[in-house]
Amino acid sequence: MAAQKQKVFFISDSTGITIESLGQSLFAQFPDTEFVKTVFPFVSDAQEVQRVIANISAAVKTDSTPPIVFTSLADKSLIDLFLSHDMPVLDIFTTFIPQLESRLGTKAKHAVGETHGVGSPIKYVQRIEALDFTLNHDDGTKIIDLANADIVLTGVSRSGKTPTCLYLAMHYNLKAANYPLADADFESSSLPGAIAGVQERVFGLTLSPRQLHKIREERRPGSRYASLEQCEYEVRRAEAIFRATRLPYLDSTSISIEEIATAILQRLKLRTHKNDSHQPASQAK
Amino acid sequence: MAAQKQKVFFISDSTGITIESLGQSLFAQFPDTEFVKTVFPFVSDAQEVQRVIANISAAVKTDSTPPIVFTSLADKSLIDLFLSHDMPVLDIFTTFIPQLESRLGTKAKHAVGETHGVGSPIKYVQRIEALDFTLNHDDGTKIIDLANADIVLTGVSRSGKTPTCLYLAMHYNLKAANYPLADADFESSSLPGAIAGVQERVFGLTLSPRQLHKIREERRPGSRYASLEQCEYEVRRAEAIFRATRLPYLDSTSISIEEIATAILQRLKLRTHKNDSHQPASQAK
Repeated sequence: MAAQKQKVFFISDSTGITIESLGQSLFAQFPDTEFVKTVFPFVSDAQEVQRVIANISAAVKTDSTPPIVFTSLADKSLIDLFLSHDMPVLDIFTTFIPQLESRLGTKAKHAVGETHGVGSPIKYVQRIEALDFTLNHDDGTKIIDLANADIVLTGVSRSGKTPTCLYLAMHYNLKAANYPLADADFESSSLPGAIAGVQERVFGLTLSPRQLHKIREERRPGSRYASLEQCEYEVRRAEAIFRATRLPYLDSTSISIEEIATAILQRLKLRTHKNDSHQPASQAK
Repeated sequence: MAAQKQKVFFISDSTGITIESLGQSLFAQFPDTEFVKTVFPFVSDAQEVQRVIANISAAVKTDSTPPIVFTSLADKSLIDLFLSHDMPVLDIFTTFIPQLESRLGTKAKHAVGETHGVGSPIKYVQRIEALDFTLNHDDGTKIIDLANADIVLTGVSRSGKTPTCLYLAMHYNLKAANYPLADADFESSSLPGAIAGVQERVFGLTLSPRQLHKIREERRPGSRYASLEQCEYEVRRAEAIFRATRLPYLDSTSISIEEIATAILQRLKLRTHKNDSHQPASQAK
């Protein structure tokens, strides 16, 4: 049976990233429906809303089901425009703001486009510094500055260190260094000297040898580097080092970059922004 | 007057990224309150929920206001545990799923942790390939493969190209190359030969000379590179090239990486995932 198709529109006075992410969470609960998504970002006045409504109406003209419309529009009068066109919306502000107002005993300011704005200049600079640091510490060669790393990921080549480091820098402003385990390191069961001194900030990544083999084959088909034997050897040695040194580590085989990053924050109990924290609710495995 | 403090807890059976982002959107509407956030990710059974509830209760013991609790828990019985402890929650599933069920005429499956899972293996591979490509095309030196780029960002050094490229790769699986404009390029009003051939995929970034000066001073204080004169010259020349070649470009001075990325997707009308699109609702400026 072909999946049921449903058109979905996201309209935001900012980037639309929040409602798209919300939509994705919700749609995952309806696996038999194929959601066809369109995002209209930076919609901030009545004229633009009218244009969006016309676009949506034209797009769904021949559809048997009406569109699903998610909005994050701080200006209530813009929501009313949708309603006056008989286009019901799922709006995050009208849904949650009244409850927050009553809880906080204060009124929302209904200002446009606050979510993904540049925020405080300090946080912006921290983010860029974190990304610069991470890009400059992506291969373990520049270890001089490891003392300034917030976190150091280690593991065999292609175990997911680089994308995870970039995610941690981009979204949590963390200076994340990457130290690949290589041949010489596998001869010992200690952490390499370069990172042993900062062990409390080191986190290991591993994955199934078969998955590693598949990933490396894409890069260097038929090489010794990519062979299943080599992958099995490296993973076995890396995990032996992690266990011998009681390093916290994670198997990244079937989880996303977001999940790896979240688990690392949780396990290292890193404070990610001032006053914010990730708590380990479950026992570490 | 000191800002009012309000403790907020995010409890998710997955990463918690969606509800944190939702919270941030909403909290931005209450600038006089300081929200002190704690995330409990990967909470997936009754025992863990009980532990989280105990943690929250202990954390807010001496507070004059009750905590605000956001949840994304697909299993309704876990929500009921909060309610039975007299802890009201703002839950995205109970809030939106009933409306979606009635719209779609089908039941949600209430499966745990679907949002930021690894998703389809194809998308995972695309993401890693996009990041690899972007990291390997971060300085304009490896231009051999520019024909395979989904997008090419150009502009003066430190105009925000690298973070934006990484964001586009990480979140939209786009192969984003970065071509910095340098001294030799400023002598002409054409696009550099290396990128002229793929102009339909090139996007310019600019920023105020003063901001550029500030950023470069952090990197190389007192250098000619960082001098206001040099920054003014480079920005003037870069913008002249953009205008002469009718290249779409954006001033990144006071906007975030998310906003730059969204605006670029919108302006280039890039299809970001199969079937998904970003629409320009407003006139391009």
